[in-house]
Parts: sequence; C-alpha cells; structure tokens
Amino acid sequence: MLKEQFNFVKGKNPVIHNITNYVTANDCANILLALGASPIMADEELEAEEVTSACDGLNINIGTLNKEKIYAMIKAGKKANALSHPVLLGPVGIGASTLRKETVNRLLDEVQFTVIRGNISEIKTIAMGQKFGSGVDASFQDRITEENLDEVIVYAKELASRLHCVINISGVIDLVCDEKTVYVIRNGHSMMASVTGTGCMSSSVITAFLASCENPLQACAAGVILMGVAGEAAYTRMKELDGNAGYRNYLIDAIYNMTPELLEEGANYEVR
Amino acid sequence: MLKEQFNFVKGKNPVIHNITNYVTANDCANILLALGASPIMADEELEAEEVTSACDGLNINIGTLNKEKIYAMIKAGKKANALSHPVLLGPVGIGASTLRKETVNRLLDEVQFTVIRGNISEIKTIAMGQKFGSGVDASFQDRITEENLDEVIVYAKELASRLHCVINISGVIDLVCDEKTVYVIRNGHSMMASVTGTGCMSSSVITAFLASCENPLQACAAGVILMGVAGEAAYTRMKELDGNAGYRNYLIDAIYNMTPELLEEGANYEVR
Amino acid sequence: MLKEQFNFVKGKNPVIHNITNYVTANDCANILLALGASPIMADEELEAEEVTSACDGLNINIGTLNKEKIYAMIKAGKKANALSHPVLLGPVGIGASTLRKETVNRLLDEVQFTVIRGNISEIKTIAMGQKFGSGVDASFQDRITEENLDEVIVYAKELASRLHCVINISGVIDLVCDEKTVYVIRNGHSMMASVTGTGCMSSSVITAFLASCENPLQACAAGVILMGVAGEAAYTRMKELDGNAGYRNYLIDAIYNMTPELLEEGANYEVR
Repeated sequence: MLKEQFNFVKGKNPVIHNITNYVTANDCANILLALGASPIMADEELEAEEVTSACDGLNINIGTLNKEKIYAMIKAGKKANALSHPVLLGPVGIGASTLRKETVNRLLDEVQFTVIRGNISEIKTIAMGQKFGSGVDASFQDRITEENLDEVIVYAKELASRLHCVINISGVIDLVCDEKTVYVIRNGHSMMASVTGTGCMSSSVITAFLASCENPLQACAAGVILMGVAGEAAYTRMKELDGNAGYRNYLIDAIYNMTPELLEEGANYEVR
Repeated sequence: MLKEQFNFVKGKNPVIHNITNYVTANDCANILLALGASPIMADEELEAEEVTSACDGLNINIGTLNKEKIYAMIKAGKKANALSHPVLLGPVGIGASTLRKETVNRLLDEVQFTVIRGNISEIKTIAMGQKFGSGVDASFQDRITEENLDEVIVYAKELASRLHCVINISGVIDLVCDEKTVYVIRNGHSMMASVTGTGCMSSSVITAFLASCENPLQACAAGVILMGVAGEAAYTRMKELDGNAGYRNYLIDAIYNMTPELLEEGANYEVR
Repeated sequence: MLKEQFNFVKGKNPVIHNITNYVTANDCANILLALGASPIMADEELEAEEVTSACDGLNINIGTLNKEKIYAMIKAGKKANALSHPVLLGPVGIGASTLRKETVNRLLDEVQFTVIRGNISEIKTIAMGQKFGSGVDASFQDRITEENLDEVIVYAKELASRLHCVINISGVIDLVCDEKTVYVIRNGHSMMASVTGTGCMSSSVITAFLASCENPLQACAAGVILMGVAGEAAYTRMKELDGNAGYRNYLIDAIYNMTPELLEEGANYEVR
C-alpha cells in the first residue's frame, strides 16, 4: 500500500494551495518540493478561488490567523469542494482563542473537509465546538498513550463519522481513522516536537498524498507514516553539537531522499 | 566586467527595500547579508515611501499578494522612480489569478521598472497583459531550450524595448537583455528548482547589483551569473543524505564565500 | 547567578507570545524551542488579549509593522500589564519611518515595558521621541566602543529611570541596565550581524528569561549573555565553505545544547 501511494505522489507532482501561517510557510514549501509536489501559498480572498482552482489540493491552517484570511479560507474551501479537490484542516492552537474556535466552527459549517489533523487537545476542542463528546466520556488527558488508546480510537471514529471525514490525531502514537477503520502508527521521533512547524509540514505532506491518491484514509495514513519515518531517519544523522536547527534540515532532506523501499521498511503501524 | 560589478556591491553595501512574500523573506534577507548588502522588508503603505527613500534599491515581488500590499508597492515604486533608485519587479505566479495580472498591469502603468525578472511563463503573461505578442508569434513552450533560443531572444528584446527596461528570463538557460543586447547565461543547477524562493533570492541579489552599478544590463547579468555560479558551487558540497534543505544553506553560504575570482572563473555566458 | 537563571527557564518552560515580523518568526520560534520554551506567534487584534493571557510573557517587535498589528500590540501589552506578565519591546528599524516612531511612542504611552532592547541608534531614536536627551549630550556615534562606554552607560541609566524599565543596548559591547546597575557584556561574535534576526531571536530569548526569573535586570542580562555565548560557540563549528546560513543553524543548535556550566564558563561580563 505505502509504496503505491508514495509512487502516486511522485508520479502526479500535485500542486498544493496552502492558506497557512507565516511562521512555517517556508518549511511547508520546501517539504512539498522535497516530496516532488509544488507549493503555492496564497491567502488573499480576492484570488483564493482562482488559485485553488489551479491546484490539486487545499491545505488550511489557522496559525497566525487574521480577519482577512478567514474569507480566503471559506472561499477557497467551498471552491475546492465544488471541484472535488481534497481539503485538509489544521486547527493549530484552536484552544488559544475564541476567534480560532469560531473560525473552525464556521469552516466546518461551510466546507466539507477530507481530513482534519491536530493533536489530541485540538481535536477535543473541535469536538466540543460541535457539541460532540457527551455520549463518549472524553476523560483521557492531552496525550495518546497505550493505556487510553482504545478509548481515543472510539472517540476518533465517532468524530470521523460525525464530521464525515478522516481524523488524524498526532502524538507519540499517531491515529488516522474514518468511522470504521483506524491506522495506529508508531513512527516518528520525540525530536520532532523541538522543531516549529512539524505539524504544519505534516499537513502539507498529507494534502499532497490526498491530491494524488484515491482513498483518503490510506493517503492520509501514508503521509503520516512518511513524516514519521523521515523523522526517524533525520535523527540518525544527528551529530555532536547538532540541535533542532540541524534536525529541521535533516527532516526535510529525509523526505527529499525517501524511496518507496525505505518508506515500506521503516513503517510501523497496524490497522484495526 | 564581473569582478568589477561584484566589487561595486561589496564596496557600496547597498540597503535594499523588499516588498515581498512571507514565504521566502528570511532567505532573501540572509542572501542579501551574505552578499554584503542590507535588507529591509516593509510592506505597509503608510511607511512605504519613507522606507524606500532611505534605501538604495527596491525589489517588488507579488508572491503572497494582498490588497494592502498593492498600495505599498505603487507608492514605493513611484518614490523610487522620483529618486532614480532602481526598481525590480518579480511577477511571481502572475498566471495564477486575475488579481496578480491586474496588479502587474497597474504597476507597469504607474512605475518605471529597471528590471523585470521571471520565468518564461510569467514573462509571456506580462507581455499578453500589455497587448504585446501579436507581431511575434510566441509559440515557444514554457521553457527556454537551445532550439527556441533565437526566437525567445527576439521576443525578449522586443518586450524590453516596449517596456523600456531590462528583461531577465530565468530557466535552464537564463537571458538578460535590453532592446539591443542579450546575455545568454548557462550557469546554475537543476537543484535550485527544488528550493523554494531561489527566484525571489535572485531578485534580491540583482537589486543589490542594480543599486551598486551604473549599467543596469550589466548589473542584472552579473547578479544572475552570481546566483548561477553559487548554485553550482553549492551542489559540489552536497553529501550523501543531503537534500533541498541542506542545499538551501549551501546556496546562501556560497554567496557568502564568493570572491571576484571564483565568480569570473565560474561564469559561463555569451553576449549577443 | 547565570546557572540559576538558566535553570529557571529550563524548569518553567514558559510560553511566549510573540507579536513580531514575518521575516524572522521561524527562527524566533525555533530558538525558543531550543531553549525549552514554547512560542506562540499571533498578531490579530481580535485574539491578542486572550492569547497573551494564556502565555507567560509577551515579545513585541515592530519589524514588518502594519496598521492592523498596532492594535494587537496595544491590546496585548495592556492585558499583559494587567496580568503582571513581562513585556519586551524591540523597536526594530524605528528610524526608518514616522509610522514606527509614532507607534513606539504610542506603545510607550499605553504599555509599561519590562525591557526595551535595541541597538544604539534605535535606543537614541526612542529617547528623542520621549523628549529625552537634552540634559545628556548624546554625541556618541552609532556604536558602543570602549571610548564612549561611560557616556553611553550614563545615558542608558537615565533612560531606564525615565521609562521605568530595563534598557538593553546591543552592539559589540552589550549593555543591560536599570537606573542604578549596568551589566557590561563582552560576549557574542561579529558573525551574528551577518544573520538576519539575531536581534529578534535575542528578544524572544530574553522574554523567556523574564517570564521565568524574578529579577528583570538579571533575567535580561542572562538572556543577553546566553545569546553571546551561543554566538561564540556557533562560530567554533564553522567549517570551510560555511557562511551565514550554516552559522544561523549553529547558533540555534548552540542554544539547544547549552548547559548551565557552558553558560557560566563562557560568560564575560562585569557589573557596574
């Protein structure tokens, strides 16, 4: 499955429209290029529909949100829906403000997302905004662990069913699920948390997979596994005195040098 | 010629005002510092004229365009014209939206550019917006090749004549021309296309040359050659497992370590 | 003193709200992560108060200023004051425009800063905007040297007294003072001036110290010394062909690998 998905991306070279934050935009662009995809960053409402029409997938990220960008997100999202392009939502820091919560609720009302990707806190905040969570007791803390894994999976599948999309919860263990099936992924390295934007980069990478592959669940899982395998490969390059800046470069370089074989060999996941 | 131009930049340490996109602004700033120039990034209309007055050259780039920035571009461009500062236009992704096309047309109406720099598609889109191209049959595809080179040169010289500026078309072969003379430059490396913003960085570098040298055609050619020679030097540093992130660092570092001698030795161009 | 302050930061892992420019935001985020702090970049007025309430310190930087951000700065600054969070001001390029001067004056009117950090020109421009400087003849040039050091110290202490905050003047010699005491710091490396945003990164780092330590003067001095020691450590990693891009990575990595012992050993300062 993984080799095939990876080769679809390499074969298609999809163009990805990113409405994203200015903190990590450069890394998102370079990691897309590393993968063989092409990035466009554009967040002006007046051109949002046209730009997304010329692309193969849309990545919406609410980091460094501002009033103006919200209109671009909605217009681009609706246009992408109309064209059946995949759309990913990264609810970055949704818990930090009412503006972010309201923006995500509005986006969920107006746009059908293919994938929603966040850490467990962000996903829980989304669920609460959708009046979801009363049936399931979301008592798990802000981490996915082996202990609460089963509970989180039930929660994620129900949210996927409710929002009609793939849910990707990132953490030490990564989950990718729709209402029926979950990929439990044990790739990645703790060092990734020391680099700003590894989540944003994952979102861009996953959108490139969504734009190149037919099955969104498999595409999303493949993107997540790729990031994790690259994160592990990057760590093997760490030399004395290297830190998070060196690691950032190694991470993007690992995507650049990835092969279907390395991806398949490095993958560590189960399907439930 | 090249050594002299390079030494003019090193002697002047020009200050360059960049109204540019947030994706590659950091790399543009660092490559200007690598060259011995000083960057200012400022895109607020309210300060555009004052900032550009304090600088030696202006670099306008329409990546991540928004409504607000357009006013800053026009005001800064007019002020730079009034002060006889060089002004470069990078019509990044002009084909992606009506907003970008209209903005470039408006800029061309209100500002006299010293250099316009883009790939062949971007330059063709500009030409079409200026009702140019009917006399010449621009049937060449979206690449400069040895086969269509003569045709592209005629086209570029006519456009330079029409817009009263130097035209720089980037590609595997780079062209820099005014209405009479063309530099055909065969430097650079294909790896540069895997790094976001090599075009934006080129624009910043060329603006530093324009701000330091008297002859815009020669200055622009020298900047393009410098980027190409640096791109080749950067590639020689690539080690196993390095990718586009490592290469980005090597590219900027190659500008930092460039000497007039290395530039002259590495240059591969002809004047027609 | 230094070991203790450093350990306070490592123990607290403060969350820092940065209202800053898009040129260096990525480096500021990564250097905060390198230090064990957490960055949030958010500059939308509508969420400024909420975001800063959830953080431990606020870093305001006027690079790439625009109309909209000014409101976010004022709201966040007032809220941080109300919550007794430390607030740092970096008056980047204040001399470049009336907008920047007026914005800083307005900020000084409405927000009580804990630290103001800039080079000698920026600090002088602030002083002039505050009608300060007639009593002292600020005839020194735009550099701190051993020759004008005493004069600059008198000037800085008086400004600290006037603005009720810690003043940090960066340069070959760095000064950190309140109205009574000055830290004269002789760490750092000239290579730092070849990387965009070392000043912005310093501001983020100092804010993390302010948010973790009780004494603002000592906290600010510790942050400045840390950046200087890291800048020296980074230079020892420079290899042939490395330039400012490699150095930028080494600088952030040096913060990542810093220990209380290395900091103490490397520190070169006197208290007057």
